Amino acid sequence: MPELIAHKIAMLGTGLIGDFYTMTLHAQRGRDRVVVAYSRSPERGEAFSKRWDIPRHTTSIDEAVNDPEVDTVVIALPNDLHLDAAQRVVKAGKNMLITKPLARTADEAKQIMDLAESAGVFGGYLEDLVYTPKTKVSLASVQSGAIGDVTWVRAREAHPGPHSAWFWDSKRAGAGAIVDLGCHCIEIARTFAGKDNRPVEVMAWADTLVHPIAAEDNSVFLVRFESGAIGQVEVSWTFRGGMDLRDEVAGTEGSIRIDHFLRTGLELFVSGGSAGYVAEKAETDTGWLFPVGDEVGELGYIDMFTDMFEAIDHGGVPRETLYDGYVVNAVIDAALASAKSKKWEPVQLEWRGGAAKSIKRVPEMHDGKTVVKRELLPDGRSKLILNDPETGEISDVVIG
Amino acid sequence: MPELIAHKIAMLGTGLIGDFYTMTLHAQRGRDRVVVAYSRSPERGEAFSKRWDIPRHTTSIDEAVNDPEVDTVVIALPNDLHLDAAQRVVKAGKNMLITKPLARTADEAKQIMDLAESAGVFGGYLEDLVYTPKTKVSLASVQSGAIGDVTWVRAREAHPGPHSAWFWDSKRAGAGAIVDLGCHCIEIARTFAGKDNRPVEVMAWADTLVHPIAAEDNSVFLVRFESGAIGQVEVSWTFRGGMDLRDEVAGTEGSIRIDHFLRTGLELFVSGGSAGYVAEKAETDTGWLFPVGDEVGELGYIDMFTDMFEAIDHGGVPRETLYDGYVVNAVIDAALASAKSKKWEPVQLEWRGGAAKSIKRVPEMHDGKTVVKRELLPDGRSKLILNDPETGEISDVVIG
Amino acid sequence: MPELIAHKIAMLGTGLIGDFYTMTLHAQRGRDRVVVAYSRSPERGEAFSKRWDIPRHTTSIDEAVNDPEVDTVVIALPNDLHLDAAQRVVKAGKNMLITKPLARTADEAKQIMDLAESAGVFGGYLEDLVYTPKTKVSLASVQSGAIGDVTWVRAREAHPGPHSAWFWDSKRAGAGAIVDLGCHCIEIARTFAGKDNRPVEVMAWADTLVHPIAAEDNSVFLVRFESGAIGQVEVSWTFRGGMDLRDEVAGTEGSIRIDHFLRTGLELFVSGGSAGYVAEKAETDTGWLFPVGDEVGELGYIDMFTDMFEAIDHGGVPRETLYDGYVVNAVIDAALASAKSKKWEPVQLEWRGGAAKSIKRVPEMHDGKTVVKRELLPDGRSKLILNDPETGEISDVVIG
Amino acid sequence: MPELIAHKIAMLGTGLIGDFYTMTLHAQRGRDRVVVAYSRSPERGEAFSKRWDIPRHTTSIDEAVNDPEVDTVVIALPNDLHLDAAQRVVKAGKNMLITKPLARTADEAKQIMDLAESAGVFGGYLEDLVYTPKTKVSLASVQSGAIGDVTWVRAREAHPGPHSAWFWDSKRAGAGAIVDLGCHCIEIARTFAGKDNRPVEVMAWADTLVHPIAAEDNSVFLVRFESGAIGQVEVSWTFRGGMDLRDEVAGTEGSIRIDHFLRTGLELFVSGGSAGYVAEKAETDTGWLFPVGDEVGELGYIDMFTDMFEAIDHGGVPRETLYDGYVVNAVIDAALASAKSKKWEPVQLEWRGGAAKSIKRVPEMHDGKTVVKRELLPDGRSKLILNDPETGEISDVVIG
Repeated sequence: MPELIAHKIAMLGTGLIGDFYTMTLHAQRGRDRVVVAYSRSPERGEAFSKRWDIPRHTTSIDEAVNDPEVDTVVIALPNDLHLDAAQRVVKAGKNMLITKPLARTADEAKQIMDLAESAGVFGGYLEDLVYTPKTKVSLASVQSGAIGDVTWVRAREAHPGPHSAWFWDSKRAGAGAIVDLGCHCIEIARTFAGKDNRPVEVMAWADTLVHPIAAEDNSVFLVRFESGAIGQVEVSWTFRGGMDLRDEVAGTEGSIRIDHFLRTGLELFVSGGSAGYVAEKAETDTGWLFPVGDEVGELGYIDMFTDMFEAIDHGGVPRETLYDGYVVNAVIDAALASAKSKKWEPVQLEWRGGAAKSIKRVPEMHDGKTVVKRELLPDGRSKLILNDPETGEISDVVIG
Repeated sequence: MPELIAHKIAMLGTGLIGDFYTMTLHAQRGRDRVVVAYSRSPERGEAFSKRWDIPRHTTSIDEAVNDPEVDTVVIALPNDLHLDAAQRVVKAGKNMLITKPLARTADEAKQIMDLAESAGVFGGYLEDLVYTPKTKVSLASVQSGAIGDVTWVRAREAHPGPHSAWFWDSKRAGAGAIVDLGCHCIEIARTFAGKDNRPVEVMAWADTLVHPIAAEDNSVFLVRFESGAIGQVEVSWTFRGGMDLRDEVAGTEGSIRIDHFLRTGLELFVSGGSAGYVAEKAETDTGWLFPVGDEVGELGYIDMFTDMFEAIDHGGVPRETLYDGYVVNAVIDAALASAKSKKWEPVQLEWRGGAAKSIKRVPEMHDGKTVVKRELLPDGRSKLILNDPETGEISDVVIG
Repeated sequence: MPELIAHKIAMLGTGLIGDFYTMTLHAQRGRDRVVVAYSRSPERGEAFSKRWDIPRHTTSIDEAVNDPEVDTVVIALPNDLHLDAAQRVVKAGKNMLITKPLARTADEAKQIMDLAESAGVFGGYLEDLVYTPKTKVSLASVQSGAIGDVTWVRAREAHPGPHSAWFWDSKRAGAGAIVDLGCHCIEIARTFAGKDNRPVEVMAWADTLVHPIAAEDNSVFLVRFESGAIGQVEVSWTFRGGMDLRDEVAGTEGSIRIDHFLRTGLELFVSGGSAGYVAEKAETDTGWLFPVGDEVGELGYIDMFTDMFEAIDHGGVPRETLYDGYVVNAVIDAALASAKSKKWEPVQLEWRGGAAKSIKRVPEMHDGKTVVKRELLPDGRSKLILNDPETGEISDVVIG
Repeated sequence: MPELIAHKIAMLGTGLIGDFYTMTLHAQRGRDRVVVAYSRSPERGEAFSKRWDIPRHTTSIDEAVNDPEVDTVVIALPNDLHLDAAQRVVKAGKNMLITKPLARTADEAKQIMDLAESAGVFGGYLEDLVYTPKTKVSLASVQSGAIGDVTWVRAREAHPGPHSAWFWDSKRAGAGAIVDLGCHCIEIARTFAGKDNRPVEVMAWADTLVHPIAAEDNSVFLVRFESGAIGQVEVSWTFRGGMDLRDEVAGTEGSIRIDHFLRTGLELFVSGGSAGYVAEKAETDTGWLFPVGDEVGELGYIDMFTDMFEAIDHGGVPRETLYDGYVVNAVIDAALASAKSKKWEPVQLEWRGGAAKSIKRVPEMHDGKTVVKRELLPDGRSKLILNDPETGEISDVVIG
């Protein structure tokens, strides 16, 4: 029987994501605890500590990080504070888990990664959405070859906009919806296309359609991977109807549709009164509602922390590393560049993966021609559409 | 911070349900362990112990139950062995968790309940399906009044039939699909109609339509509760298409639809090869498949054991007690009687709940008549359909 | 090329169903026209005629029926007026199409049927829901054997209650939701179970749970057919959430789920203003809405009238005859009787169909025992669950 | 009552689309008939004529077009033959309905349009997918303002590839999936974004991932409209799982999801035998199947021809004109150019619409700052996120 290791955690940041993380950490394995919370506001620190029964809170990052009981620090701060906080955690030599996105730019992300790696400190990237139960099951199917080679991944995250002010300030966040939501979508696309499949170039549209801000509130962009596969990212801060969190995968032999949030088999009609809390970013509490059964489970938080702690406890590598966070920031940089230049932009990064194979194309031959399509006719014969490899002429033939 | 209590468990039975239970127990809180497994077959006991890394296995129930390390015994045996096993667990004074159904008949169930209660031994009834995340969220809505008074609950469980031989033998199981699947559905109906809402009478159809067995392989029955609400139970061992596990609730102010298994937001199309394991009772592995993300989570096993251990550790009462199991068996008895007598049969049980209120009917009055229906017309006026309480005459009127 | 026959129609009744019928008749083939409308209220007759561009209207049924231009009369009146109107139509010798239910009782229905048959007048029963596109496609699959023998049909119609006063008056309507909605469900069950499959007996629950009326506002009943198949009818006048119009069919080799109204692939979220008309019986116009694309198409009106006119024009028999209406009324009579007697009640009718075969049970034999279930094991061997036909003993065996 | 006009039609082309058109024309209004069919192959012409009970067939386009009985010619030929056929129809002075796409290029399309317009011949563009019942209902909601200003339209059409050889030959078709499927998607996007909303520029990815052909078998492209709205087009000839035909619309006040084909409320599970024809491009006939109830209805053919004939008969303009076909071809040209140049390309066309208004942004002001977001807090107060229009500084405030 494995020894039970319990972790004592410092939580830097007391916003919505800090709530989700702490709820998960306290419930999940029943033994890990947040023992100190940092907030620059003493009032918010105190409220957070009361809410989650946390013994200590402080307005000093260093005090939280160097708390002698603490072995692991979760950085759940605004994007512009990640690098500074990471420096302090690395200096203290604690395990470091950083929320998404890793940083505002690939350059900042690389600094964080390099710091941790040269100090030999454990670093994990808290990208929850690749850990959802549906993603896990789907990924197992993809990896077993059930849908053949992946050709296209759609990752969509859209809602009416974030809760905290700093998200809307591109100086602090790095950009708008592309950084806030795109980081999830990029990593979902990488996960299905293959982590060893280099993201080569990006073509992006971005615009500020509705909100009175400088940053983009809508974007669609395409990431071309080395294999030829395409990641299609759709993000919006102006979507109406709840949190639209869907992924689709197409492969040469099959396809997948995932709905994480709005259509998951639970449908509630409420005529008059209130149904109370429905789900994150839900817009209404009457009419037809689509609550999520186990929200922290469906969003992947549970499996994410389990993976992180298992890697820490047994000396392994978590599924999401600081390097993954750096790759995501490099793709974001390319997307932002493309939205300005109005052309495809290369993803600039120090690639650690190998070379990916192209999507398989082993066409069948018939009479010296390649078979474009084969269809079974009702009378039992087959119709072949043929391409003459020399002339490019297309023809068809019906065979016995 | 709460003290961490870890449980050492004896698992009686090594069938499919033993696998699900052990998988859940070992994964969930990371600290509880099955330390001894009982199977009457030494081969199955050994295979099971290897599969789950369990230190000891035995062909003696008493040896398992009296294992000094064990504090909690899970009875996951065929229905005809529950009473005998319960006697041994109670004698050993261990915490006792019994799988569903509690027994073959209300009489047997009552003996088990009485044994535990008079000995002061903790008893829990392992009805997982009232603990699913979707049920939990739905129940919270119902209890907050979001859908008004419950009028109707549909609980459906249908699949192509169980895996082990004893289920098909009504002498061992008690009956067929009514006992195997109906026990879930009855408790789901009670949960939404209200645990204090007495099940008064039952009207059942049952038939053996397809399988060459004596027991029923299909049944539909209605349970009338004291409030007037109806529980509608549909069970089948001949359903094609996977595990059909759906609940619906209607109330005076709203309604709910739950799909636990077949349409939960994950859809996979596989053209040719195999997608591997899809979900319990899935029939195919090509074409459109509907896998379940987190199967033990969606089926409620995780929250069920959490509830049981919290009750054990803190001296509380779990959501599902042996008394609940006894009520379910009493309803099953009435269903089997009704299927034979072809009329409504009373549910005979020692009722511990109080009296339930009838579904609310507070009709609006207009001019000394009751308002049957009120409709807003496009021109802003209202059309009322009226019932004269003295004559029963129905009329309508349009008002300002 | 077929000759084009255009029909001139008298519409008796100007309520909601008269609107649906006239909308369909005028749009569908572009050549049939309602030329006279009857309403006992001159105001409603005039408004209806204006709405649909109908040249004449009258408060005399005889005048409408005997209008020399008219060849076909549609009886779209309250249930208690069907018999009298039918007598007048038959006397005039016109084609007669009667809305559902045919009458208040089987006795009345038989009088209507006998009148038309002895006079040689064409009679059609306007049961639209067996003509919907989805029902048509599903029925073709069932009839081709795709799902094997039908074992169970669920037909559900539930909404918040009808618009006109007379529906709520059981003296005029015959009963409550059982007559209004049950007539649809019974014919859907017959359609899938097979029109030659005699409905043998009925077991019903009915109650008045919410509305201040004498008639039932909720009912669930089971119809046992000669083959052993079960029709499960669920009707409600208290359902919240729109018009719940769903059918399910289980067979020995497959199954079907149909949703006609609430989840048909069109989903609309509206945050603030109004989305206008959504669909019949929709309850809200904000939040998530589920409009129906082609409402008269999805409800079967188009194919229903096409079938009727083709039968009239070419001397055939429509899919729904007055005899079908009579069978439905006989089942309703049995349901109402069972709701009172609290036991199964026989369906009393003059059966014209033949005898139906029982659901097929051709069990495989192994070593002189019947095979209850056969499962392929992961290692390629098969596990058989066996029943000894002499002793009833259940066992299992794993074979090569 | 309107006079009934019956049309006599020449059908040029006897492929799959000719079958769909003729099936619709013969069934729909019961009075229009195809009287002559043209195919370059006498065998196919004869088979087609027999199949649809058409009196004459010919291998001469001129003979078909000039058939004295014919008033309307449907051009259902491969793309490279449209211009030549159109010249012959215009010369004959007959009404001309042309299948999608109008031509291979905007230049060809403009020649066709100019021919018809200068000769005063009626021209209709047979783009069926903007006529589907779901599109019609959705469009009415959009036009009534129910979802506010449209910001984004996703139009997706994906299947395993077309049936006839010429589609795969980019010399004949113009290109690959962009021409074949993209023409539908572009017009769907225009329909929801507004026909008066000029398509300004296009950014496209296209690749040949699977099939051994020169043309693209996959593409995703974005069309930016003058208002700022984005049309997102996804087309694929390599999709597995049937015909994926979905549209989504986001607006400032609401959103829409449409599934035309795969999830429309009809679900069929077939264990073993065959369910027969399921729907166009369905890949399997066992397992879970999703047939379409009324296929020609759901695809819009019925309403499309009704609109065309009403425009012809009453001198109006159909919803889809040759000009619309020309605009679509201009967008296709830009998409193909962008796929090569790897940057946004302008849509070059003679624009006849006016100027479209930008998406509305009327931000609320608070204390001289623009309100970025307003959230109601649980305690009844409101949290405002504010943007200082002079400094761009983001802040938040909680107000009474």
